[in-house]
Amino acid sequence: MIVKPQTYTFGESESDALKLRCGSTLRNVSIEFETYGTLNEAKSNAILVCHALTGSAHAAGKHSEDDRKPGWWDSMIGPGKAFDTDKYFLVCSNILGSCYGTTGPTSINPDTNKPYNLDFPMITVADMVDTQHRLMQHLEITKWLSVAGGSLGGMQALQWAVTYPDAVHSVMPIATTPMLSPQSIAFDWVGREAVMSDSNFKNGEYTKDALPETGLSISRMLAHITYLSEAGMREKFGRRLQEMDEYNFEFTHNFQIESYLRYQGSQFVNRFDANAYLYITRAMDYFNLSMEDPEGKLENVLDKATASFLIISFSSDWLFPPYQSMEIVKALMKCRREVTYCEIESDYGHDAFLLEDDTLGDMVRNFLKTQEACY
Amino acid sequence: MIVKPQTYTFGESESDALKLRCGSTLRNVSIEFETYGTLNEAKSNAILVCHALTGSAHAAGKHSEDDRKPGWWDSMIGPGKAFDTDKYFLVCSNILGSCYGTTGPTSINPDTNKPYNLDFPMITVADMVDTQHRLMQHLEITKWLSVAGGSLGGMQALQWAVTYPDAVHSVMPIATTPMLSPQSIAFDWVGREAVMSDSNFKNGEYTKDALPETGLSISRMLAHITYLSEAGMREKFGRRLQEMDEYNFEFTHNFQIESYLRYQGSQFVNRFDANAYLYITRAMDYFNLSMEDPEGKLENVLDKATASFLIISFSSDWLFPPYQSMEIVKALMKCRREVTYCEIESDYGHDAFLLEDDTLGDMVRNFLKTQEACY
Repeated sequence: MIVKPQTYTFGESESDALKLRCGSTLRNVSIEFETYGTLNEAKSNAILVCHALTGSAHAAGKHSEDDRKPGWWDSMIGPGKAFDTDKYFLVCSNILGSCYGTTGPTSINPDTNKPYNLDFPMITVADMVDTQHRLMQHLEITKWLSVAGGSLGGMQALQWAVTYPDAVHSVMPIATTPMLSPQSIAFDWVGREAVMSDSNFKNGEYTKDALPETGLSISRMLAHITYLSEAGMREKFGRRLQEMDEYNFEFTHNFQIESYLRYQGSQFVNRFDANAYLYITRAMDYFNLSMEDPEGKLENVLDKATASFLIISFSSDWLFPPYQSMEIVKALMKCRREVTYCEIESDYGHDAFLLEDDTLGDMVRNFLKTQEACY
Repeated sequence: MIVKPQTYTFGESESDALKLRCGSTLRNVSIEFETYGTLNEAKSNAILVCHALTGSAHAAGKHSEDDRKPGWWDSMIGPGKAFDTDKYFLVCSNILGSCYGTTGPTSINPDTNKPYNLDFPMITVADMVDTQHRLMQHLEITKWLSVAGGSLGGMQALQWAVTYPDAVHSVMPIATTPMLSPQSIAFDWVGREAVMSDSNFKNGEYTKDALPETGLSISRMLAHITYLSEAGMREKFGRRLQEMDEYNFEFTHNFQIESYLRYQGSQFVNRFDANAYLYITRAMDYFNLSMEDPEGKLENVLDKATASFLIISFSSDWLFPPYQSMEIVKALMKCRREVTYCEIESDYGHDAFLLEDDTLGDMVRNFLKTQEACY
């Protein structure tokens, strides 16, 4: 499947600009997006797929035959796959604040004609969803058959259900949470501190020749620990040593897990922007669905939703553990919403939403079949 | 209780030097230690208390009336306390590689008359225990009534039981593990990378005017996340904000958990040496009791031990989770050793060994009574 990225731009005028939750507005907002499959005449087969922290609009297929890797959820999206492109029209757009084509801190600030960097306004998950809603209007779709996503993508799905209830027939928040726990906020804090204290960071005004690579790599290595489960790490790496059989009695990488982290850190700095990383993790920290109710009750917020929910968690996910998905389920049951919940047994930790294709695929396929029937 | 730190130095000659597991030797080894209570004539009431990663020989009492805080385990050690100084003679020594009086990377290398810094040889938990054994000989004690410690202190207690079985009547490894899991190795790796990549680090040759504060602080903040439990963090901090009621939409500390980490990080850089932190965490990574058996079987290693064991874990400790203590218990049962095991219910996470005085105190008190009777 060869796909071409597309761009939609809006907000040239002040009245059309994107109003953000922090109080700022953004002009000239570009959205990078991709589509897979064909929109039917009734426009009833459109599904929005939302990506996670460092993902992109490139969810499936390849941009050219030579591409080494397909999109990030290619195992789930394509002809005959769970998100069957023979039946459905899929849309995936890069989130606001990211560095893969949609407006973010690397974009040019129309007021200064220079990159925003840290002058970019603070964004929220609700702002990301507003941006996607603009794209939806541009595509002339009035109701998504479903909005699906894992991790931060799942937060967007939840946000869609309560901000635009009439625009979503169903949602699939996967491996996600109604609000970040203090432990996750803490990990994000340490990660951002590592980036911001890198001597190359220069308050966000770093140059291409001297990126805050060390800090960003530390941040990414830390994040990767939270994406794997403790049991999964024991299974995959154990205490096995790299290259040699004995301790090297040095501070260089000696255990295989150290080499793994080192590799992940070094790869990341080549593909992601440090400022974008700061903004998106902060948006995640700030995500708290229950805050939309003056009393802070999640059920009062979810009461606005009309969609059917498929909520999926993974047993060994300790970043967004099953109990957090259960909180959504309980709140939905209090407001008598249609909700299907599944905790999938997996050792993959948080990463499971990208790896457990078989189980996840079956759940998604069946849920979509039901949703299609009652759209 | 006013106590005075003491020092014992050995290894002036090559023959008396400390032979390390990495192959190097250390000359002029100083051990800083403190004692509490009185050694009885039979020398049958001596207990060694082993401290954790950033602890010191100052386990109890104060150095002067003006001291703001007592020693790190003062809630457990003193007249009438669990480690009752009216009955027992307690010894606590600063570990090899530390920066609180015992020889470590900040010490003067007798070969160069300069601080070792990164020329300090790599040390292991077994080397720490060998150093304590030298102190034991100096104190003319032949058998500890017990060796007790939490976390890294518990590793030392385990090591004592297998390296010097005749010198320990009982051991109390608390909140510890027979070997570091890859997840803990991973956290240590990220922490050390933060220290070593600080521009002030200068390959360990930093000066007092420009310490690698940022890196060390990041490392410490990360460690603190692993010392608390997720549930404990929710209880203690939740998503509460600092100072104001609303999001500040900035990258500065906004959540209380962020202020807490920031404070812990900033306090630590004033009290601990970065190189010492590297060496001790690496010694923890390398700790793997089962490696002392060619087949890697923990029960074969513990079969060397003759001591009675009191093993204690804490339900919410995810750094050294209960299952790791259970592995020790199972191995001890296989070799038919006397072992008492207790998993204490607590929300304090790994920190519980410093906080659960009541429950822990009762366990220790009763265990010591039994051990005393059959010494």
